[in-house]
Amino acid sequence: MSELTTQDLESILEFTVTLARTAGDLILEGSEAIQSVTASKDVNEKKNSVDLVTEYDVRVEELVKKEIAQKYPTFKFIGEESYSAGSRPPLTDESTFCVDPIDGTTNFIHGFPFVCISLGLIYKRRPVLGVIYNPFLDHLYTGIKGKNSYLIKSKGQPLKLPLSSPPKPLPSLSQALIAVEWGSDRVGKTIDSKASGFGRLAGDPAQGVQGGKMAHSLRSMGSAALNFAMVAQGGLDLYWEVGCWPWDVCAGIVIAEGAGGIVTGSHDVFSATSSGASFGDVTEDILTGRKYIVVRAIGETEGETAKQAQKRIIEEFYSTVQDVDAN
Amino acid sequence: MSELTTQDLESILEFTVTLARTAGDLILEGSEAIQSVTASKDVNEKKNSVDLVTEYDVRVEELVKKEIAQKYPTFKFIGEESYSAGSRPPLTDESTFCVDPIDGTTNFIHGFPFVCISLGLIYKRRPVLGVIYNPFLDHLYTGIKGKNSYLIKSKGQPLKLPLSSPPKPLPSLSQALIAVEWGSDRVGKTIDSKASGFGRLAGDPAQGVQGGKMAHSLRSMGSAALNFAMVAQGGLDLYWEVGCWPWDVCAGIVIAEGAGGIVTGSHDVFSATSSGASFGDVTEDILTGRKYIVVRAIGETEGETAKQAQKRIIEEFYSTVQDVDAN
Repeated sequence: MSELTTQDLESILEFTVTLARTAGDLILEGSEAIQSVTASKDVNEKKNSVDLVTEYDVRVEELVKKEIAQKYPTFKFIGEESYSAGSRPPLTDESTFCVDPIDGTTNFIHGFPFVCISLGLIYKRRPVLGVIYNPFLDHLYTGIKGKNSYLIKSKGQPLKLPLSSPPKPLPSLSQALIAVEWGSDRVGKTIDSKASGFGRLAGDPAQGVQGGKMAHSLRSMGSAALNFAMVAQGGLDLYWEVGCWPWDVCAGIVIAEGAGGIVTGSHDVFSATSSGASFGDVTEDILTGRKYIVVRAIGETEGETAKQAQKRIIEEFYSTVQDVDAN
Repeated sequence: MSELTTQDLESILEFTVTLARTAGDLILEGSEAIQSVTASKDVNEKKNSVDLVTEYDVRVEELVKKEIAQKYPTFKFIGEESYSAGSRPPLTDESTFCVDPIDGTTNFIHGFPFVCISLGLIYKRRPVLGVIYNPFLDHLYTGIKGKNSYLIKSKGQPLKLPLSSPPKPLPSLSQALIAVEWGSDRVGKTIDSKASGFGRLAGDPAQGVQGGKMAHSLRSMGSAALNFAMVAQGGLDLYWEVGCWPWDVCAGIVIAEGAGGIVTGSHDVFSATSSGASFGDVTEDILTGRKYIVVRAIGETEGETAKQAQKRIIEEFYSTVQDVDAN
């Protein structure tokens, strides 16, 4: 196994940013094709809009795979489409790109401009590099493990994340703007649990909502990668997700961590790790565990470190929202 | 009362677009001030972040009011801040600007970049002109009653709305991307009703969700004006809101209508008007009624006009989500 130095990662990042922009052009082309087909009156053409989404998902992944194979022939590859094809490679210690070619597929179908490509790199079973690019808004996020994360808007100067420096405080969920998603698992048990959990996050405990947290509000944008990026940016305080996959979050984890955020897994993982030194280490179990929570950088106060504050916020969240199965 | 011609409206639109961009600069300045204050460790400074939001809300409204008074001294003015001051002017037949200086205040506080100024014009008690500008993304939406609506991104060429032409079909809510908001009314009755209604929109009727519609998904961005604009654009299929005010929706109504969308009010208003010729006429009662539903342009099919399709979608929605009080 070849060792990756920080210099290697800087070089891989440069390659990945260029790749993300190239893929972004293809995503924009796909969006135009889909919008014109779904607008067609021709029934046979209409049927093809879902096929077209799949087609562009595959095309973007093929493009990315090919470019990576040319530049880094020894690197392994995990992608949404490859996995769907049934060939999920288990994580190894090798350098492995972990890619969602089009994150926010429902948005992509509808022309709702919160869609991105998410390009993550795993090394020694840990996420170490991430690029997230939304070609509709021309917002590009980058991160390398142990370094700062950045946002580049419309090819301007890189902005260090979080945008607020020093990071803002976060006394409790009552001050928080929280991202949650309805997801693709729509069975009664999951939906009931989410609906009541979201209601408790929003509800006023003094006005009939038992366990209500009266959060500032809840947001749902429909892209896991962009939610991670927005937490990194500091525009969202917390994002909780169950049911997405490593390629949805791998890049986002690195970007959020590089912006001072903390990432962990399910209720059980949190209970098991929150008191130890490993809290905040995104292990293979967490990366592949399909349950994620990320909290933004929080400013230290006299009585509390940043990590203690993040732990406190996750505790409050997990006491409010029950775990659901990842189907 | 002076009569407004289409030519007058074109001229007012030009003025309003310039005003929106000027106000946008002030909103961006405010955002920077707020983010740096909320990030401060100084407790006294922290306390001031809410004051700062109010300060910029007032400053933007004062700027807008002053510019309008100079250019159109006979026009009346309804603004969020003026209303808060207790001087709600009743609607008249006169030309009246109806303005939300900063729509998406919670987003503004948090640095979540879905914030806009919403500038509407009411004439003879009907919304007739609208400009919505998000300075963070540099997205500007315009509309004039009876004319096409447009989106201008980053000072590019105006894009006619909806972006898909002809408009896409919409067979049922099961194909829809729907915007809903948790809002500011957090009492138990409202939150329970919303949570269960949202759960029914998302849930699968074949897997334990009674009355489930299995919508493609639900989105919550936190700005009424931008939700209207996104429905006009075609990126969202439907937006439902209870509790917001005429200045939140006035501009959005014109922009959505000019993009082929339809707007109506509460369950009761819909029941009373949906079978008549007045369906889709945003009367003073609807404009001030604080309950709104907007559906995007839908492509005609052989058996159904666009308006029939929109009515069908609202019927399906209102059979799924109960009305709540506007507090």
